[in-house]
Amino acid sequence: MHALNQPRRAEDALEDLKAGLGAHAVLTGADVPARNCNDWSAQLPRRPLAVVRPVDATGVSQTVAACRAAGLPFVPQGGMTGLCGGATPEAGWVAISLERMTGIEEIDTASATMTVKAGTPLEVVQNAADAAGFLFPLDLGSRGSCAIGGNLSTNAGGNRVIRYGMTRDLVLGLEVVLADGTVVTNLNKLLKNNAGYDLKHLFIGSEGTLGIITRVVLRLFPKPRSTMAALCALSDYDAVVTLLGEARNGLGSNLSAFEVMWPDYWQVVTERIGVRAPVGSGHGLYVLVETHGSDEAADGARFQAWLEGMMEQGVLADAAVAQSHAQTQAFWAVRDACAEFGQVLGPHVSYDIGLVVAHMDAFATRCKTALSAGIPGCESVYYGHIGDGNLHLVAWVPGLAIEQQPKAAMDAIIYGLVRELGGSVSAEHGIGTMKKPWLGHARSEPEIALMRTLKTALDPDNLLNPGKVI
Amino acid sequence: MHALNQPRRAEDALEDLKAGLGAHAVLTGADVPARNCNDWSAQLPRRPLAVVRPVDATGVSQTVAACRAAGLPFVPQGGMTGLCGGATPEAGWVAISLERMTGIEEIDTASATMTVKAGTPLEVVQNAADAAGFLFPLDLGSRGSCAIGGNLSTNAGGNRVIRYGMTRDLVLGLEVVLADGTVVTNLNKLLKNNAGYDLKHLFIGSEGTLGIITRVVLRLFPKPRSTMAALCALSDYDAVVTLLGEARNGLGSNLSAFEVMWPDYWQVVTERIGVRAPVGSGHGLYVLVETHGSDEAADGARFQAWLEGMMEQGVLADAAVAQSHAQTQAFWAVRDACAEFGQVLGPHVSYDIGLVVAHMDAFATRCKTALSAGIPGCESVYYGHIGDGNLHLVAWVPGLAIEQQPKAAMDAIIYGLVRELGGSVSAEHGIGTMKKPWLGHARSEPEIALMRTLKTALDPDNLLNPGKVI
Repeated sequence: MHALNQPRRAEDALEDLKAGLGAHAVLTGADVPARNCNDWSAQLPRRPLAVVRPVDATGVSQTVAACRAAGLPFVPQGGMTGLCGGATPEAGWVAISLERMTGIEEIDTASATMTVKAGTPLEVVQNAADAAGFLFPLDLGSRGSCAIGGNLSTNAGGNRVIRYGMTRDLVLGLEVVLADGTVVTNLNKLLKNNAGYDLKHLFIGSEGTLGIITRVVLRLFPKPRSTMAALCALSDYDAVVTLLGEARNGLGSNLSAFEVMWPDYWQVVTERIGVRAPVGSGHGLYVLVETHGSDEAADGARFQAWLEGMMEQGVLADAAVAQSHAQTQAFWAVRDACAEFGQVLGPHVSYDIGLVVAHMDAFATRCKTALSAGIPGCESVYYGHIGDGNLHLVAWVPGLAIEQQPKAAMDAIIYGLVRELGGSVSAEHGIGTMKKPWLGHARSEPEIALMRTLKTALDPDNLLNPGKVI
Repeated sequence: MHALNQPRRAEDALEDLKAGLGAHAVLTGADVPARNCNDWSAQLPRRPLAVVRPVDATGVSQTVAACRAAGLPFVPQGGMTGLCGGATPEAGWVAISLERMTGIEEIDTASATMTVKAGTPLEVVQNAADAAGFLFPLDLGSRGSCAIGGNLSTNAGGNRVIRYGMTRDLVLGLEVVLADGTVVTNLNKLLKNNAGYDLKHLFIGSEGTLGIITRVVLRLFPKPRSTMAALCALSDYDAVVTLLGEARNGLGSNLSAFEVMWPDYWQVVTERIGVRAPVGSGHGLYVLVETHGSDEAADGARFQAWLEGMMEQGVLADAAVAQSHAQTQAFWAVRDACAEFGQVLGPHVSYDIGLVVAHMDAFATRCKTALSAGIPGCESVYYGHIGDGNLHLVAWVPGLAIEQQPKAAMDAIIYGLVRELGGSVSAEHGIGTMKKPWLGHARSEPEIALMRTLKTALDPDNLLNPGKVI
């Protein structure tokens, strides 16, 4: 007689899944695609035991049940564009890929919502909203590859958080498969719904460690009817803080981006990458200001008048206003040129940290000094979405391969300063495995203990994406 | 020898607290104030064993420890303005009142944040933001009495959710005392912070059942420089849905209120309460549209032009535009007149439900018919924030005292229809004890089971506000 709870062999569990979901839904051995072995965080690829590709929540639930029966850890996967290892499998794990769970289920124009399967690429979501006369405002460089479910699981940010919020703020409801296989359907479409605990926030931003998101209800927004952009040069950071306050007050809720670039960033982009900039070099700081408006007639004049006021008050040293869509794109090219750092800087390490606005410049100055003093030859450049409290920086020692870059020493200097200034070790990329050693620099022991309480409550057997985040 | 875990007598635990917090911090017996015995939900008052009034999180933690030692249930209390019994104690409980934990700790103008103690009245928060040159947009009728911590624990809504979001959307960080007495300090000031699970959302909207909020970091917004308002009459609900879509598109993010009133509401307000309305009776529906803008010069002309367009397209049957602040207030008086229902309608039962926009009118029509058919003499009126999916209704049988009103029969009819239409039994008031029997009408079994998992994980001894919500 077999004991009822005797674990199933892994091979048998996978055979069960092939029988239940179809053979093409279960890939093993040499059939495991390279894309499912790693995310964009440049770690070494890890080949899972199997990749399972269900087509709905029921299939995900069946997969979870099979994994549990055999005691196999499992990890949910979307577009694999994460930067911290949150979706990377380990040897012996089952990767549950949502790549076949794509498509828009409904657009409710009266409620301004879209219901979509979690594996749908962000760009498909954006285009569907656009075709229905709406804007879905989340936008990232990886828009063509990343999946909306992955955007939720990392609570992705992007350039327009100052206007539209993080991914979390764009979600009204979701469907999730728990670590025990239960399907929880919470496809709420209401802005106001206080009927018990708001469960969706547990799963948004928890990097696939508390549940597997399978469907999502998103908020849609009116399409902007005007976009204005200016590239501004300022003498110092005090002027930047003043400009931010004046932008909030003078441009109101139209303010859609406030991107700050330090001179080292500017130099790399204009001199080494060769992007043509509409204002000259030699200034203290640079800011790209953008608005999304709904009044085509008045927005341009208003933006121009606001900028002129800033010039007259001496807040700005120089500024250029985009006169066309092409010029707006050219201004953004300065900010987006960081995507080409790999080509011109060579191997480098990217950081994504959070700081209050008042500390940004002190951090940039002190960090640059500490890196070059502590690590011979280390260079660094600084830029970010400062209105959201988000600073990006890139550090590198010229001439070293990526595996030779002194990342541990950089981490220690950078995250040490983050801790000292009360900041966050991850503004938008998440924790995954790569930032786990530094979580304690941004979160207190009681906070981390509470995260553990939640993880244990929702995944007592620690089979769902174990070892990630905490 | 005493067993180590032997419970302390309740009297001894309260004496310990008097010694630790000061005698004036612990009120018992006849000293328990009436205000701590009930909220605004018109249930019978319940006298707790004691009211404890700490001055900080450490004092709250000590109180929790004393309660636990004696096995006493405890309930956090703010302004006691809740409508569902969430803060009402039971006999033998300890009420932990935050009434002495008041005051603004910091306003960070560069980050546009305010750090405030949880017992601070909402109106004090609003005024402090205003004095610092900002807007804190949450606004409710009980602003002078309700505490900001209570606003968080119920995830309060209000009139301007369509523009600024629910309370949840206005919070960046908090400090909370857990059911085991641990103080978790998470006073984040960053819009973007993905360092581990976002813990604050656990405590916002969980009605004091998962932790006691002691301090809060709030988002501040630019003050609007213009307010425009129009009271509109429309022929039918299709026109209302069209107007909402056109308002989102044409007024963009300036749209700050979209309040719909059905003819029965209009009749009570204009004929029985006697509010002077700027448009005539006899229309199918009425909408109060308001914008908050940042361009004093252009906003008025733009609002006027938008309204004229709606008239020309036949969306509006009639409309009046406020020409002054006094007129804007007069328009709001029509919408706010529901506060006077008690005087003119006599005893009545108020409901706060959530529905998708497309179902609102069908609900109002069917509900009115079902109530008058199912309950002899039952009358009802309908109004709400429809852009947020929130409908309010009031039902009553004229001449009956509040305890004679057939609330159970009304509940069954109203919440039965809510379930049928996939709505929510609570848009903004919460569940507390009053709506607990109906939670299953808005949440599935797996959702409620997951709520129970969270409650058990965070309060395994079920001493923190037990029996509320779930």
